[in-house]
Amino acid sequence: MIQLDGGVVPPVCTPLTPERELDVPSLERLAAFLIEAGMHGLFVTGSTGEVAYLPDEVRYRALEVVAGVAAGQVPVLAGIIDTTTPRVIEHARAAKASGADALVATVPFFAPTHPAEFPGHFRAIRAAVDLPLVAYDIPSSVGTKLPTDVVVELAEDGTLAALKDSSGDLDGLRAVLERTDPSRLRCYSGSETLADLGLFIGAHGLVPGIGNVDPHGYLRLYEAARRADWDTARTEQARLRRLFRLIHVGDPRMGRYSSAIGAFKEGLVARGVIAGATTSEPMIPLNDTERAAVRQHLEDAGLL
Amino acid sequence: MIQLDGGVVPPVCTPLTPERELDVPSLERLAAFLIEAGMHGLFVTGSTGEVAYLPDEVRYRALEVVAGVAAGQVPVLAGIIDTTTPRVIEHARAAKASGADALVATVPFFAPTHPAEFPGHFRAIRAAVDLPLVAYDIPSSVGTKLPTDVVVELAEDGTLAALKDSSGDLDGLRAVLERTDPSRLRCYSGSETLADLGLFIGAHGLVPGIGNVDPHGYLRLYEAARRADWDTARTEQARLRRLFRLIHVGDPRMGRYSSAIGAFKEGLVARGVIAGATTSEPMIPLNDTERAAVRQHLEDAGLL
Amino acid sequence: MIQLDGGVVPPVCTPLTPERELDVPSLERLAAFLIEAGMHGLFVTGSTGEVAYLPDEVRYRALEVVAGVAAGQVPVLAGIIDTTTPRVIEHARAAKASGADALVATVPFFAPTHPAEFPGHFRAIRAAVDLPLVAYDIPSSVGTKLPTDVVVELAEDGTLAALKDSSGDLDGLRAVLERTDPSRLRCYSGSETLADLGLFIGAHGLVPGIGNVDPHGYLRLYEAARRADWDTARTEQARLRRLFRLIHVGDPRMGRYSSAIGAFKEGLVARGVIAGATTSEPMIPLNDTERAAVRQHLEDAGLL
Amino acid sequence: MIQLDGGVVPPVCTPLTPERELDVPSLERLAAFLIEAGMHGLFVTGSTGEVAYLPDEVRYRALEVVAGVAAGQVPVLAGIIDTTTPRVIEHARAAKASGADALVATVPFFAPTHPAEFPGHFRAIRAAVDLPLVAYDIPSSVGTKLPTDVVVELAEDGTLAALKDSSGDLDGLRAVLERTDPSRLRCYSGSETLADLGLFIGAHGLVPGIGNVDPHGYLRLYEAARRADWDTARTEQARLRRLFRLIHVGDPRMGRYSSAIGAFKEGLVARGVIAGATTSEPMIPLNDTERAAVRQHLEDAGLL
Repeated sequence: MIQLDGGVVPPVCTPLTPERELDVPSLERLAAFLIEAGMHGLFVTGSTGEVAYLPDEVRYRALEVVAGVAAGQVPVLAGIIDTTTPRVIEHARAAKASGADALVATVPFFAPTHPAEFPGHFRAIRAAVDLPLVAYDIPSSVGTKLPTDVVVELAEDGTLAALKDSSGDLDGLRAVLERTDPSRLRCYSGSETLADLGLFIGAHGLVPGIGNVDPHGYLRLYEAARRADWDTARTEQARLRRLFRLIHVGDPRMGRYSSAIGAFKEGLVARGVIAGATTSEPMIPLNDTERAAVRQHLEDAGLL
Repeated sequence: MIQLDGGVVPPVCTPLTPERELDVPSLERLAAFLIEAGMHGLFVTGSTGEVAYLPDEVRYRALEVVAGVAAGQVPVLAGIIDTTTPRVIEHARAAKASGADALVATVPFFAPTHPAEFPGHFRAIRAAVDLPLVAYDIPSSVGTKLPTDVVVELAEDGTLAALKDSSGDLDGLRAVLERTDPSRLRCYSGSETLADLGLFIGAHGLVPGIGNVDPHGYLRLYEAARRADWDTARTEQARLRRLFRLIHVGDPRMGRYSSAIGAFKEGLVARGVIAGATTSEPMIPLNDTERAAVRQHLEDAGLL
Repeated sequence: MIQLDGGVVPPVCTPLTPERELDVPSLERLAAFLIEAGMHGLFVTGSTGEVAYLPDEVRYRALEVVAGVAAGQVPVLAGIIDTTTPRVIEHARAAKASGADALVATVPFFAPTHPAEFPGHFRAIRAAVDLPLVAYDIPSSVGTKLPTDVVVELAEDGTLAALKDSSGDLDGLRAVLERTDPSRLRCYSGSETLADLGLFIGAHGLVPGIGNVDPHGYLRLYEAARRADWDTARTEQARLRRLFRLIHVGDPRMGRYSSAIGAFKEGLVARGVIAGATTSEPMIPLNDTERAAVRQHLEDAGLL
Repeated sequence: MIQLDGGVVPPVCTPLTPERELDVPSLERLAAFLIEAGMHGLFVTGSTGEVAYLPDEVRYRALEVVAGVAAGQVPVLAGIIDTTTPRVIEHARAAKASGADALVATVPFFAPTHPAEFPGHFRAIRAAVDLPLVAYDIPSSVGTKLPTDVVVELAEDGTLAALKDSSGDLDGLRAVLERTDPSRLRCYSGSETLADLGLFIGAHGLVPGIGNVDPHGYLRLYEAARRADWDTARTEQARLRRLFRLIHVGDPRMGRYSSAIGAFKEGLVARGVIAGATTSEPMIPLNDTERAAVRQHLEDAGLL
């Protein structure tokens, strides 16, 4: 089984045609672009990949496309995002069949679930499909923080291979890092803007949404941190923080995802990687002013 | 197209075999039991029906079974619960094919969505599948209250046929009732314990989870309210409030759904309607003490 | 000691001069207006009375003024609102010295406090000052719901004489009413817009902020409910709900209190009761358009 | 006027006698202990100082005592914590009269206040009393995050001299640091467990509650960070994180403050600095087992 070993693992955008079908050639170019940039893995059908919007068939087609491009060069992680255990297990099986090297699952959502029920959830997934399992802690989407005690318990018994922390709670991430053996649990920070801090406290990898647009920047940041060159890491982070402001181009007339995912896709169009910036329904598309603002952000960051 | 016309429309439990497969004979008996009790409709694959846990095939098989028993005697509403628009539309199509008379959809969840994007969500579903559409307002599950303005706008333009209010916000429900034409929008209260208040302020129907166990009680309450016999309605509600306390039998060692859905199913077993009380993973099952407590609640309520 | 016995007990506004000093003649006229309108008590230095803004000396001067006008005709309740026990006890002593007949206290706020610490809080206040004590449940201000179990425990042991419920949680209020002896605990609803429902479920009294502006309307509603004339109660409530919309005149350019308290005061100016509509810092004052809108609401409600 | 210039500024505990009166000799010893340990300032009547519990007279007596010991060697900051503007201004005046060198105020709480009203709040305080003003961002207590835009605006116009960030939001703190001139706004992190990260991103100082117990540890951390010796800073932080676990000795039978403040005081007793560990009502006191656990934590940290 493939080993997850940290590094930069961007959550790959899912390019769509104007008719909102999967744009396979664009996705192939995007996967190749990210691998060539030196990414250590690719995370398909994550939040940034519009997983919550994609019908099952699109999810698994996207995964097949990326796994085909990756061809074993880097691990492909698949988000198996659904409301609770039996539905998540269905996705786990389909993801394995579509070429996933590892699976990324949240705690249950929509159905109020007690933390005492979380271990059973992850253990059932792990038992059903033999792939490394990554817990995805994203309280802003699921409404619950994954407790440190649960992560520690599931790292110790081998249920979890990694944690992707998108909680913004560096104190909690630090507690996990203090209480787990890094040979048993890899920790990835999902923060674009505090990636340097995640690495400073010992996280092994990064999953930055805007890494689609500027993978080289996150690689520089990661490598600087690995050699404890904190001044360089912080300077690169400062540049990436400025770039990241592009997620607000659509404020306040649309939701956070509409603006951010629209901006990432527009950035990829501007860089010549994908063909169009269409997003899923019901996201409001960026208008011309907002698209121009995205391009200006890329120019300011030296990416055009 | 069938008209939704208020009344008591319980969210039907989904009986499972000990192996956690759909227990078709039990579901048939449950549907028949509810129709014979005089229910005005059946809501399949709602929260109480464990929709968040059921794989697609189980969802649609359950719907077919209930639609088969209903056979046009009462409308069958189908919960088309998923994270956002394209996935919800897939369920809408499958539900129509499986015999649904109406569709029940929430606002998007998991993916942060701006209220400005809600109308597009419901309009896209309504445009994709020609069945009456019910908006399901359940902030405890989706994290957002459906704004009154959105409901009013979508009632006026014919997108919505009804509202199922599980928000607990009687002030908001009252505002919807004041601002919409009842011939265009039917309002159902999802509260088991304030059902009399919902009817007092003008709601047209009820969707009580515990109506699975005591449909006759909610029918009496509803009919008393229809003839403005508030003393009788309130007295029946008081009895049903005492019965409803059975949802706490599992506190605090499990989640709210594990305890409530486990108790509803155990009550149906006690009443001889379904064969077993198995619930979906990762719900913790009731133990013997808790099951005995459920039966005591039913006895106290005169149901055994 | 005076008995709290339900009825309509408005939370009295605190009129200020343009220099933001206590406007004593206006407050005297307001107290007299409310007593003449048949109010069953007056609640001074509540949220509507801007208690959170008033320096101690203004709080106690306002209380003295109202107690002087009331002169034993109706009980005067004093809000003793502060962060936690020792500070609240200081207010309790000062309020008794200033003529209060009963005290109204919330659970601690600002300092995170465990529900296990709530009984000690109320018992210490009750032990320090010998006046009937009312628990004020207002989670929107203090961040915590007062648990039913705590209310029941403190009603049984005589610590609490009454509950003022501004939680909006009718289910919780109903549970308190079911579990307490009305001869030991009186329950008041703080809702302006669901007052009829509060009385329907058995609450003994009302504390409506907009009762400052239209005390006669709430008296009619209360008296209709007392004789179980629910149609009249509901019709009056509908009229008062329309009037209550005036609290939104300042949306969205200011906070909820700025708009609501500004509108109540403007309404009292329009009705000739108080001299000016000045509110405390840092509340944004209503502008001319907003003030005209308040008067239009009063005209529509037949109050001018 | 004194300049706030970063460094370690602990929020001084308020020792109480067993009768819950201010223990002046203990407070004098504590102030002297902290100054001798090299602290760069003392923050009196903050959250850790039980400000929310202390009657006014105790607040100002505590401030006088500390100001007397400090005698100009280090600046004394006073928390002027109250619900909203006019009440906060009263505290500001009293604090200046009692010897404060700077004032620390939160946004309004209890009374719902719109962010558009925050600038007026801070400007009114600053205009009323001529002392440097520190904005205290503590959403867990006040229910609102102080927006970055407000901080930037009030730093630029000279209203604010500093920010004390107890929000836990390092991303927001970083944004403030990026957008303000450090010669105009000093930023202090209120985090005990991520103090190294606060300094890494450019904060000028620390306000650690457990700095009462181990001021030397935070000084070492601060000094290491100042010379960019991040390994030393991180190692010291790791030790302090282990020590900080003592705040949980009272879980789960009491509130967070009861446990944490009780543990800080018990630690100061164990170190021979103050005479007793009494806390304010209604906090539950630590029992013998919990007190022993505190001492064990101090031993493990090499402090006994």
